[in-house]
Amino acid sequence: MAKEKKLVEEITSMEDDFAQWYTDVVKKAELCDYSSIQGCIIFRPYGYAIWENLKAELDKRFKETGVENVYMPMFIPESLLNKEKDHVEGFAPEVAWVTHGGDTELTDKLCVRPTSETLFCDFYKNIVQSYRDLPKLYNQWCSVVRWEKTTRPFLRTKEFLWQEGHTCHATAEEAKERTEQMLNLYARFCEEVLAIPVIKGQKTEKEKFAGAEATYTIEALMHDGKALQSGTSHNFGDGFAKAFGIQFTDKDNTLKYAHQTSWGMTTRLIGAIIMVHGDNSGLCLPPRIAPTQVMIVPIAQHKEGVLEKAAALRDQLSNFRVKVDDSDKSPGWKFSEQEMKGIPMRIEIGPKDIENNQAVIVRRDTHEKIVFSLDRVVEETDKTLKAIQKDMLEKARAHREEHTYVATNYEEFKETVANKPGFVKAMWCGDQECEDKIKADTTATSRCMPFEQEKLSDVCVCCGKPAKKMVYWGKAY
Amino acid sequence: MAKEKKLVEEITSMEDDFAQWYTDVVKKAELCDYSSIQGCIIFRPYGYAIWENLKAELDKRFKETGVENVYMPMFIPESLLNKEKDHVEGFAPEVAWVTHGGDTELTDKLCVRPTSETLFCDFYKNIVQSYRDLPKLYNQWCSVVRWEKTTRPFLRTKEFLWQEGHTCHATAEEAKERTEQMLNLYARFCEEVLAIPVIKGQKTEKEKFAGAEATYTIEALMHDGKALQSGTSHNFGDGFAKAFGIQFTDKDNTLKYAHQTSWGMTTRLIGAIIMVHGDNSGLCLPPRIAPTQVMIVPIAQHKEGVLEKAAALRDQLSNFRVKVDDSDKSPGWKFSEQEMKGIPMRIEIGPKDIENNQAVIVRRDTHEKIVFSLDRVVEETDKTLKAIQKDMLEKARAHREEHTYVATNYEEFKETVANKPGFVKAMWCGDQECEDKIKADTTATSRCMPFEQEKLSDVCVCCGKPAKKMVYWGKAY
Repeated sequence: MAKEKKLVEEITSMEDDFAQWYTDVVKKAELCDYSSIQGCIIFRPYGYAIWENLKAELDKRFKETGVENVYMPMFIPESLLNKEKDHVEGFAPEVAWVTHGGDTELTDKLCVRPTSETLFCDFYKNIVQSYRDLPKLYNQWCSVVRWEKTTRPFLRTKEFLWQEGHTCHATAEEAKERTEQMLNLYARFCEEVLAIPVIKGQKTEKEKFAGAEATYTIEALMHDGKALQSGTSHNFGDGFAKAFGIQFTDKDNTLKYAHQTSWGMTTRLIGAIIMVHGDNSGLCLPPRIAPTQVMIVPIAQHKEGVLEKAAALRDQLSNFRVKVDDSDKSPGWKFSEQEMKGIPMRIEIGPKDIENNQAVIVRRDTHEKIVFSLDRVVEETDKTLKAIQKDMLEKARAHREEHTYVATNYEEFKETVANKPGFVKAMWCGDQECEDKIKADTTATSRCMPFEQEKLSDVCVCCGKPAKKMVYWGKAY
Repeated sequence: MAKEKKLVEEITSMEDDFAQWYTDVVKKAELCDYSSIQGCIIFRPYGYAIWENLKAELDKRFKETGVENVYMPMFIPESLLNKEKDHVEGFAPEVAWVTHGGDTELTDKLCVRPTSETLFCDFYKNIVQSYRDLPKLYNQWCSVVRWEKTTRPFLRTKEFLWQEGHTCHATAEEAKERTEQMLNLYARFCEEVLAIPVIKGQKTEKEKFAGAEATYTIEALMHDGKALQSGTSHNFGDGFAKAFGIQFTDKDNTLKYAHQTSWGMTTRLIGAIIMVHGDNSGLCLPPRIAPTQVMIVPIAQHKEGVLEKAAALRDQLSNFRVKVDDSDKSPGWKFSEQEMKGIPMRIEIGPKDIENNQAVIVRRDTHEKIVFSLDRVVEETDKTLKAIQKDMLEKARAHREEHTYVATNYEEFKETVANKPGFVKAMWCGDQECEDKIKADTTATSRCMPFEQEKLSDVCVCCGKPAKKMVYWGKAY
């Protein structure tokens, strides 16, 4: 039986080395592979299928709010990137530059888009003339490039896949509403689909997007107690509109600048799924985005009728994403593989089960075994998948609650960050100096000023001056 | 009423200037817009929605044949591109080069993928070890870049969207079968979904893909009599496998090279749809890929009950992609707009119709009016859309038949190419010299050696030597 445990034995335990565990899972579950370009990954079929499910669900939700998809060029001329001062300063240091087309040197060099605000603004400038042309609610699914030095599969890669929404409105209020609407959509998506609870809040001035008036964020807590920024929504006010000249004639016949937003989610969500739900058996996928939801494993499959029964079950479960593993591997190997790949549940069925008109469900998240009557296979599967989806969210929420601390003085703050992985809630005076000092002293950064504020004390945890905001702090990916 | 005709009046008639008509339709139907990068277009919502429909249908058909989606990096190191001699010679002159990441000059410069054979080969080399690992049937949806000098929206752009399938097999036979299977899939897709009939055949040595053993193609005829290569499928044999070292241990325990294929379709299909089906009223979309299949236009919509009835019809037609145009534009303007955008049918409904429990369907393709009882709205809509889909294919097929000529001597050949836009079928000796001469004399190129061969004469139309193949010739986009 030694061979059968091989898949599992080869992964590092998360308690020993979380980073190595992560790398092992990514590789063994065949989510991705390294490529010949350092920092760029290959999305293998299993990893890409998760992205396709995630994308389909998110895209549907966008369209329900009136968003339309477009596709903009992948290149941005240097002159265009330079139009909004803060924006170019934020992105220029990490862009890839195209300098030659074939044998010809380009006169205006092109950067590969790190994000497409400038292209959308240039477009809106041409198509927005009147209040009748507003709002514009555009989104694109594409890949972007940021020349990062330190990379890690899904979490930070030189090229990654994402969606970027860019909207254009007649009023500041409308832009603010859209910024909040999309953040709420992201938060619901994470909780309902990915089973990942998130903290919603606003980024500090220091952490906001280059060129934005305000950046909202959702922050999730990984199993190792580090935070992951999982989606952001930016309110640009009319800053970009002024830099690019996006003006329209309003109902009152005066010329006004448009107000804009942008919002994005990326393939780093796959990293979040791995690090929130995974365990020492490997990946653990929420049923709603699992490429395969149910794996049927026949036991003693050479015995008469077993494979036929397994196939019959698969046909009965055709409303789910279901497969039969009828390969010539041993059941033990198949179990390990199904667990490594995080398939939410398996059904074991052998000759004895068939005799007794029953089978066994094993839940991936809890390893619980459920013996059930074959007459109820559809109902049991449906019930189990729903229970897994719900319980995974609750488990993640409980983990986050257990790893969220309060600090009311700086000693306590430093002590907590050093010894207790997780979020630390603490009051802040609003000065960047304190943010910088906290980062320098502890490596923790301000994750967000949550919409749900609490008053933990009257003074800033760092400098002791009057506090303005309660902030979530933490070490982050 | 002058204003109402504006949309239509602004487009050039196709008989006067086909190229200008094309540009007008692309712009007025809001399919795309020019960007600040010469030769790169912006896919506007309507154009992108056509691509999304096309992609969903094609992707479903791929998956039914066992194909899985992946995503490879957008960059190819120069050293990797150089590995297959013919391939690099074919593509290097037209690639965009990334030379800097941030402030740092790259040691191995990167090209933005013009196609990804080299990346897939590099990947297969690592993951294919045994016959058990085969076949690999991968595909990706992405954008690619080719630094073309002369560009035209959808037909030829520096960046375009496409899918590229790359498969890896144990035997030459299997690779050949897959090449043919995908070409047949493409042909059926064009006919069944895009209502575009195609000629299936093989490219000559001169016209085949850089690095391929054989290239198969589907060729469609545009309304102006020019050909458009609409999809290609390449059999690589083991050429790339030898260049990249893709070897596996076969069942007989010997080491063998893999056999490969690749196949692709691009956003130029949108150009094909425009040029096959469009007319002087604008775009004309086959129902199966139309983002909106039915536009309901209320007449005298201020009258009591009209808008309500229009909305009720929309709800009854919820199984179709249907919209109500309840804007404050006049009915005439709405008709023009629906026609310009190529929405397959409209339903006109006004107070008198409601009184008589009827409405009027107007077909976009034939402008035929059909009065029908409101009790049968679902059946009539379904019947009409199916009839449009079918008739559009037949019309396109008839156009192609009428514009396909036979030439048995060189005078006749030159005369036909010069004066009769369309395909010319003629015999060929198989020498590239004749192909080159024909191109130099007439600008026509060999489109394909059709699978369905006919014997039109014993000798080559150009040199008079014994003929080997019947070839479709034509001027092409």
